[in-house]
Amino acid sequence: MRPSSSKLTFHKMHGLGNDFVIVDARQHAVTMTDELVRALANRRTGIGCDQLIQLEPSQEADFAMRIFNADGSEVEACGNAARCVTQLVGHEAQIATTGGTISGTPDDTGATLDMGEPRFDWDTIPLAYAMDTTNMPVRWEELTNPIAVNIGNPHVIFFVEDTASVDLARLGPIVENDPLFPERINVNVATVESDGSITLRVWERGTGLTRACGTGACATTVAAVRRKLVSGRETTVHLPGGDLAISWEPGQEVRMTGPAAHVFTGEIELDDFL
Amino acid sequence: MRPSSSKLTFHKMHGLGNDFVIVDARQHAVTMTDELVRALANRRTGIGCDQLIQLEPSQEADFAMRIFNADGSEVEACGNAARCVTQLVGHEAQIATTGGTISGTPDDTGATLDMGEPRFDWDTIPLAYAMDTTNMPVRWEELTNPIAVNIGNPHVIFFVEDTASVDLARLGPIVENDPLFPERINVNVATVESDGSITLRVWERGTGLTRACGTGACATTVAAVRRKLVSGRETTVHLPGGDLAISWEPGQEVRMTGPAAHVFTGEIELDDFL
Repeated sequence: MRPSSSKLTFHKMHGLGNDFVIVDARQHAVTMTDELVRALANRRTGIGCDQLIQLEPSQEADFAMRIFNADGSEVEACGNAARCVTQLVGHEAQIATTGGTISGTPDDTGATLDMGEPRFDWDTIPLAYAMDTTNMPVRWEELTNPIAVNIGNPHVIFFVEDTASVDLARLGPIVENDPLFPERINVNVATVESDGSITLRVWERGTGLTRACGTGACATTVAAVRRKLVSGRETTVHLPGGDLAISWEPGQEVRMTGPAAHVFTGEIELDDFL
Repeated sequence: MRPSSSKLTFHKMHGLGNDFVIVDARQHAVTMTDELVRALANRRTGIGCDQLIQLEPSQEADFAMRIFNADGSEVEACGNAARCVTQLVGHEAQIATTGGTISGTPDDTGATLDMGEPRFDWDTIPLAYAMDTTNMPVRWEELTNPIAVNIGNPHVIFFVEDTASVDLARLGPIVENDPLFPERINVNVATVESDGSITLRVWERGTGLTRACGTGACATTVAAVRRKLVSGRETTVHLPGGDLAISWEPGQEVRMTGPAAHVFTGEIELDDFL
């Protein structure tokens, strides 16, 4: 189904340099085909973005957010996108995603999100077979004994001495595609600094190395609390694109606070474009 | 001077994947600082483009076109941009650039441009000292005996057996920055195919490897005619981003025909942005 007019209005936003084209299809349905997503996401011949976000009506929340990677594949959760969407709508909102419902509250420079409760059972990560997810008896070269967390999407976290010394561009896809992870996995390498903050680099499933992964920051903070590497309450996570503040206590929801910037509004004529 | 409103309307266009943000400042002046150009050209936190194009009033032509690279530096001429601008205004136009006046005629899918007459004198390229520009007695590793052409901006062209086998990412900047070229130089490696068409790769001064360089296609066709490698009239030039049709006969203007695509129109709030 195409909208009656072929003009598509969109917003370009970013959270820590993770950039999005956001299409509001709450009033008028827009069918996002793989081909259209790929064309819109192209940085030279399209609008350009890491992910395309579509807002849609929802029965169980204020609205739903669908997230498409630049290759057209759909993903469950994206914290940076949820902050941008919360800023865009400009009020507290329950946002349904295929990874669970996120609660967002905008502030002057971004938003705070309740990302839901993390899951740790091996079959909720999911792993291919049962094992202790807090100290997994597995290794990929120097990456050993990770901890697994599902926070709307699946993560493994490796605590290392120095995140910069890990060749994540090479090891990331090896871990991501290991048969241990039937739905593949996001790969986090993290160092807990002396001040209790966390330095983090993330290999994102289906995307690669990114400047900032909000769910990775949440999963890593949860992992550090579980491993008793940080005291909890609020942890600052340093990502290549900037900082996020993450708080979590066992049995609670994970809360993330960080920036979201509106860059421009645009209008594209789809009939001419495709 | 800022426009009275801080809202900036722009067009995003591309010619063979060489993409532009086009700002029409014919009615309302906009001051493009280095900082603003760099911020707008950023593909994640700005609009994203190879070059930012500003249309301005002109005494001697219908309007003037200024061209800024993503790093904020200003360049003289860009054939891909002139085709896009001609499409955008939608009528025949004389376009003043700092590299000379270009005459553009739009068609259904792009535009034809009169790029002016090429110059061959060593001091108009410019070179640092006098030499034969048709068969220059110089070499950089396997790149030997180029021909130099100025078509609004300076080019050297190396005719080689196989453009793909040249490590242009490494050799391009070496040639570009050689003291022989006091204003640096665009570096073209070209192969004349058996059907008379030309395959071309370009290292652009201040930009690097690009998918398509319109002035490079013009300069290379002129060079091939001067070297009697092609018969003239019309030559198809194959660039990584697609084809351009170039015609030239000695003593005439160079004419280029190629595509130009309008992608979207946008509006950005400069006060929030910077």
